[in-house]
Amino acid sequence: MIDDFPHMRTALDQAEAAARSGEVPVGAVLVGPDGAVLAAAHNLVVTQHDPTAHAEMLVIREGARKLGSERLEGCDLYVTLEPCAMCAQAIAFARIRRVYYGAEDEKGGGVTVGARIFNQKTTHHRPEVIGGILDRQAGKILKDFFASKR
Amino acid sequence: MIDDFPHMRTALDQAEAAARSGEVPVGAVLVGPDGAVLAAAHNLVVTQHDPTAHAEMLVIREGARKLGSERLEGCDLYVTLEPCAMCAQAIAFARIRRVYYGAEDEKGGGVTVGARIFNQKTTHHRPEVIGGILDRQAGKILKDFFASKR
Repeated sequence: MIDDFPHMRTALDQAEAAARSGEVPVGAVLVGPDGAVLAAAHNLVVTQHDPTAHAEMLVIREGARKLGSERLEGCDLYVTLEPCAMCAQAIAFARIRRVYYGAEDEKGGGVTVGARIFNQKTTHHRPEVIGGILDRQAGKILKDFFASKR
Repeated sequence: MIDDFPHMRTALDQAEAAARSGEVPVGAVLVGPDGAVLAAAHNLVVTQHDPTAHAEMLVIREGARKLGSERLEGCDLYVTLEPCAMCAQAIAFARIRRVYYGAEDEKGGGVTVGARIFNQKTTHHRPEVIGGILDRQAGKILKDFFASKR
């Protein structure tokens, strides 16, 4: 099972690194049309004093810079947690082909709950979305992190 | 009327500069708790090859960097166009106090249409929102820009 999703495994490693540095443990990986990893990152909101520095935003920005285009057509995103509305809208703007995510985020998600960005008529690109990939591992990292903060 | 909104006037100047450089003409200004301008910017999506480089995102990121905090409590944002869902969610994350915007965005907005970010239960901070500020000027800049592209 794990071997089927090596990129999600990399994203989980990123999430674990985030936890170690006191960041909410979410990791993301952007994969180019040729299957090569374009960017891997974890949340840096606290470290960078940047409320927009979610893992997904960081890999989208880095990937777009590397490809020299604001459109990431044919690219796939792996992220350990359901994207929030900010990241989901950025994913749509970037024309990402497919989003694989781990755990669902009942409280802050913007895909299956809340703003449901990809279901809005104002969203002009909808990626294919596959949730629940290695979700137990992703959820455990988050749960352990918040338990340690209490 | 115009003199009542000097920061929106600055944001409109930013939008005009954006149009001149081929960017979708939207400008934004972030004002600190003391009333001083923390950041002013316009869209840089094309120039920076960054799908997240909306005017609002750029001033939020710069303001947070300047204040050394991912939270912009007591700060107000002026933007010439209704924010999209990405920017609205970033505004909520940043805990911005008040959002003044110009024209409504029926097609791409995330405040009054579509995702209606500030009305979602998953949005944990809702700024005060005042729309329609110098909206005719803001709308005209956008209309002229898109007409010139046809």
